[in-house]
Formats: sequence, C-alpha cells, structure tokens
Amino acid sequence: MTRDLPDYVCACGRSSVPSAGRWRCDCGGTLDLAPVPLAWNPRAGDHSLWRYRDAIAVPGRELSLGEGMTPLVDAALDGEPGVRLKLEYASPTGSFKDRGAVMLVALARLLGADRLVADSSGNAGTAVAAYAARAGVPAEIFVPAGTSEKKLHQIRGHGARVTVVEGTREDTARAAAGHVERTGAFYASHVYNPYFYEGTKTYAFELFEQLGGRVPDTVVLPAGNGTLVIGAHLGFAALREAGLSGRVPRIVAVQAERCAPVAAAFAAGRAEVAPVAAGPTVAEGIAIAAPARGARILAAVRDTGGAVVTVSEQEVAGSHAALAARGLWVEPTAAVAYAAVRRLRAEGSPYAEGEVVAPLCGSGLKASL
Amino acid sequence: MTRDLPDYVCACGRSSVPSAGRWRCDCGGTLDLAPVPLAWNPRAGDHSLWRYRDAIAVPGRELSLGEGMTPLVDAALDGEPGVRLKLEYASPTGSFKDRGAVMLVALARLLGADRLVADSSGNAGTAVAAYAARAGVPAEIFVPAGTSEKKLHQIRGHGARVTVVEGTREDTARAAAGHVERTGAFYASHVYNPYFYEGTKTYAFELFEQLGGRVPDTVVLPAGNGTLVIGAHLGFAALREAGLSGRVPRIVAVQAERCAPVAAAFAAGRAEVAPVAAGPTVAEGIAIAAPARGARILAAVRDTGGAVVTVSEQEVAGSHAALAARGLWVEPTAAVAYAAVRRLRAEGSPYAEGEVVAPLCGSGLKASL
Repeated sequence: MTRDLPDYVCACGRSSVPSAGRWRCDCGGTLDLAPVPLAWNPRAGDHSLWRYRDAIAVPGRELSLGEGMTPLVDAALDGEPGVRLKLEYASPTGSFKDRGAVMLVALARLLGADRLVADSSGNAGTAVAAYAARAGVPAEIFVPAGTSEKKLHQIRGHGARVTVVEGTREDTARAAAGHVERTGAFYASHVYNPYFYEGTKTYAFELFEQLGGRVPDTVVLPAGNGTLVIGAHLGFAALREAGLSGRVPRIVAVQAERCAPVAAAFAAGRAEVAPVAAGPTVAEGIAIAAPARGARILAAVRDTGGAVVTVSEQEVAGSHAALAARGLWVEPTAAVAYAAVRRLRAEGSPYAEGEVVAPLCGSGLKASL
Repeated sequence: MTRDLPDYVCACGRSSVPSAGRWRCDCGGTLDLAPVPLAWNPRAGDHSLWRYRDAIAVPGRELSLGEGMTPLVDAALDGEPGVRLKLEYASPTGSFKDRGAVMLVALARLLGADRLVADSSGNAGTAVAAYAARAGVPAEIFVPAGTSEKKLHQIRGHGARVTVVEGTREDTARAAAGHVERTGAFYASHVYNPYFYEGTKTYAFELFEQLGGRVPDTVVLPAGNGTLVIGAHLGFAALREAGLSGRVPRIVAVQAERCAPVAAAFAAGRAEVAPVAAGPTVAEGIAIAAPARGARILAAVRDTGGAVVTVSEQEVAGSHAALAARGLWVEPTAAVAYAAVRRLRAEGSPYAEGEVVAPLCGSGLKASL
C-alpha cells in the first residue's frame, strides 16, 4: 500500500521512504512531500475534506469524522464589504486542526504504527486523540504543565494516555520527540509530519470552490508553527500550477506582538527565523518562540507578495468582542486573524483592499471558565 | 414581504396572520404553519440549511452562520454495521438548535421585531443569542438559576441581556412568556414558534440527500420538547407526500428514564401527555416534565410505526464513554439517542434492524469542568 506514497524530501537534498518511525531527515531537517500533481475533481456528494482526495497525497484508508467544508460567511450581515470569515471552529473537535489530524492518523494506520505520540498544549492534542480513537490506534499525548483539566479530561475520554511535562512548550515537544526516538512510536506531529499540510491544503481548495472557482485577493492567517499558512500556500500554489487560478492570494501571516519571531525575521528581510524570548499572550495557540518551519512560512508569505504583521493583546480582545457581538464565539487565539483585518482596514492598508478572507480557527467553547 | 408567509393554524380550527407579537393561538394552543408544498431543489453550492430553501417556509432574508450540512458518519470504523451518527454538534454554536434559531431570528427581522425574548437552560439560549447578534436584533434570554457561568458569559458576550429566574425550568418559560405579553417583544421560542420546526425539518432533508436519495429504516431521536422529533417528522412526511420517498422512517423517540412523560403516555396508549414529577438527570437538555407539544410528538411516533423508549442514567454514561472512545465528544444529553441504539441492538429489537441513524446533538465542549 505504501508504494503509492510520495517520498519524503528535505532541503538538504536527501529523500527517504515514509515509515512509521521516520519523522525528520537524517540531517535533522524537516521533511516535505515530493510534489504530487493536483487533479481537480471535487466529489460533490462528499462533505468532508476527502472531497479533494484527487488533489492531495492520500494516506490510505479514508478515516473521517466529517472534517472540512466549514462555513464561509460575510464578516457582518451589513457593512464591511469584501471581508469574509471561514468558520474553522465548526469542525468535529472544534478547530482547524482536524484537517491535519485526520491525515496523520490515517497515515499512522497505513504505515502499521501500533501507537502514536503527539505533543500539544491545545487543539492539536485533542484533535489527534479524537482521530486516534476513531481509528483505534493507541495514543499518547504530551502536554505542558498548566494545560486545563477540561482538556485533559477530553484527551483521556478519547482513551489517550496523557504525559504532563514541566517547563516550556518547547520542553514538551522535546519530551515527545525523545519518547518517539526511544520507543519507535509514530510521531503524529502537526509541525514535523508533512501530511498535516496535505490536510490544511484543503483550506485553500474549499475557499476556491466556495468562491465559485476563484481565489480571494488576500488571505489573513494566524501563524505560530504556520500549519495553516504553509498548507494554504501549498494549496493555492497547486491551484495556480494547475492553471485553475491565475494567481495566488497574498498571504498575510499574523502573530501576537508578544511572540513574533516570524514577524521580526520578515521585517529584517531575513530568510531564517531566529528564536525569541516570548512574553505571555492570550493567543496561546500561536505562541511559538522557535517555529521549526519558520523559513518555510517566510517563503510562503514572500512568494505571494504578502506580509507578516503583529497584533497587540488589546487588539485581540477587541476582535474577540467584535466577533462575539456578531454571533461568532471563538477562543482568544482564533480572534487574531480578524484583529489584523480590522487594523489593516483602519490603516487603509493595500492588504485590506478587495476580497479578504480570515479563518476563525478554534471554538470559544474550548476556553475554560 | 409578510404576505408570502403561510398562516398560523391551531388544532382548535382558528388561523392567524404571523406578526411579531403572535406566539400562540387565542385559545392558548400551540401554532403550526399551514402546509407549504415541498419543491425538491437542493442548491448544490450552498452548504447551509438554506440549501433547502425551496422545501421550507422561508422567513425572509437569508441570515446564516453556515448551520446545517452536518457530517453523517458510521458509528464505528469497523463493526456496528448499519448504524450511522449525524454530528449535529459540528455546528456554529455547537448544537442542532442552530437549525431552528436561524429561522426564528430571520422571522423576527422580517416581522420588524425591535427585540426578541427566548427562554432556555442551554443550547437554545446560546443559539438564539448568537443569531440575534448576527442579525442585530436586541435579545433578552431568560435562564433558570443555576445555569453555568460559562453559558452566561457567552450569552452576554453576544450582547444579549440575561434574566435569571428562580425555580423550575417551567417557571423560566412562564417568566419569559409573561415578559413577552407585557412588552410585545417577539417570542423566539423553540417550543412555541412553528418556524423552529421548519429549521429542524432540514435534518430529514440532509439525511435523505446524504444517503443518496433514500431514507433510513429508523431514526432514533432524543425527545424533551420534541423539537427534533417534530421537525424530522415534518421533513420526512413532506418527502413522502412529494413522492420522493416511498415511506417515512420509523421514529424512535428517546427520553431519560427520570423524566419520561411522553414515554408514559405512549406506553399507556394515550393521545395526550400528562406532566410528571421529574427526577434529576444528566440529560438536562431533554428534562421536560410537561412538553407543550406532547400530543404532536406522540402523533409523529405513531404515524411512523415507531416507539418511545427510555434510557437510564447508567446507559447514558455508557453511551457517552463509548462515543468518546471513538473520537466523538458530546455533552451528556447528546449521548441519549445512541444509548437507546445500543440497548435496542443488545435486545435484538426490530427497531435496531436495517439502517439506523441517531444524531449527536450537542458538543462536549459545552459541558463545564
């Protein structure tokens, strides 16, 4: 079955065959998939992301909880013309991470993994735990100390084992990777595994289809590890290469002011992202001080003529309140992209001209209270 | 605009014209809509319930947060053949109530209501608050004392005023109705307003379409006020009358053992539902001791050759755990229908034969912890 999977490739030039134990290059670099040609043949009757099965690398059996095909709505019923929001939180586990989690778990099954490991402080952990439960693959989720009881209860409810790690989020990732190295478990990493981005690619495909076969002028996307930025860029680039759209939308990546390593690198014109010392932010879902694929995020933004911007804590709070006042209930991190849209519009930025789409990535029901 | 709306009709024989202040018959009875012919013309590109706009009475402007078109998945990846679950919780506010709330708020707008009132201990209240915010109609939500802070926070976040009522859930409904009578506000009641059922009708239409143009043998549905039972029955009956399906599925309505007035009436062969003294149940969303449309629920079940069954607290807990172990995270009430499916299958009941569909009505993220 695995003979149909594209090779893993690394910027160092090496390639490797996908296997349950392979999660990075021998050089330590991150893996991508060798390019897969896109066949544009959406399955009209399929309301999951497998609707686009001919446009992505499919890791085997079609596991699904009905992820994808999220609503695209005008930002406001009256006013704010040209701004649309994609309700990624109307998803089986309440966040866009379902798009990637379904791919990782499907791949784990295909590769015969007898268990999988993931690390996350939040949405990726619950998403991977849910899909692992669906697939019947035992899962172990590494979380940082301080993760809410509510989240731990859910992960355990899905039958996954939880390992709480003291220290930073990076310490959690290191602990998970170390465990993977010691045990040979499949590393269902939303950062390292390139199939995660095959899933988030479908964000671009859905937008293209929902807009009647065209791409918007600008997509504004939150960026921590860049899972949505990179996936969306891959998707839009594939549509362009297939001749389906004449261009790619500008990608505006948004970071929290208090944790903005990609924004700093972009502003300085660098090709690589240097780690930063981050301050606390309500946008905890994108508070990534040292993104493993930082260079890839920068390349995506630059390829599209886009930008990396930051938003303040106050702007995130203002965005959250404005969304709630329109019936849209999101977690704080999910208010980041729309916060940037509001600011760009207020500033009269060219990035706010034309048709702009921002995702609302996670449900407000996830926040503890 | 309102000239296109069907009349309100009552079992007493009176009919009335829809208006912002009209919420029940002069005789005190509940209102239905005069029959609307179904035109089967799903809009393929529309992923909201307005996809079925030609099959329902449409209350004016097409308000939407992308409700409807929820996933239909096999109960288990392996095994349990014939049982499917419809993930109603993958919805903008996290419950099936969105199907009705969008209709009520659209109607309030159409009728020129300057504010609306709703009463709910749970999902209907947050759904109505969210859609009212979307539509820009001021809302006041009456909730029983003891409603979680998390829910109040959300309702207030949507800009609605919250009135907390001491006493039972029935006391809350009475307080809301009294307020409506005094102020002339639009009563956005998921129980009284017949447009709520135009929304829940689409549950049947989606199933029909998702199953490739046929209806399942049995639909198992939770029943408190019966908003889904009645709506689904209306939808399936409309498909039958239009000659699109040869039959309606059997409706098995499920109540919590500790609050089962409809089950008692069904078992006794009565046409009306007598109020019961209810005990506490984890299935709080369907703990309705005196359902206003009890007779209609019984009629729907009997028309289809179905049944009303009860499940114990232990069966609900077992169902919740079984669903979680398969990646499906629901609130306790939402585990009720599948609890009944499990029991019916274990008993070898004819209601478990063939193709069976149960909804998962509310997200587990809604539960406080």
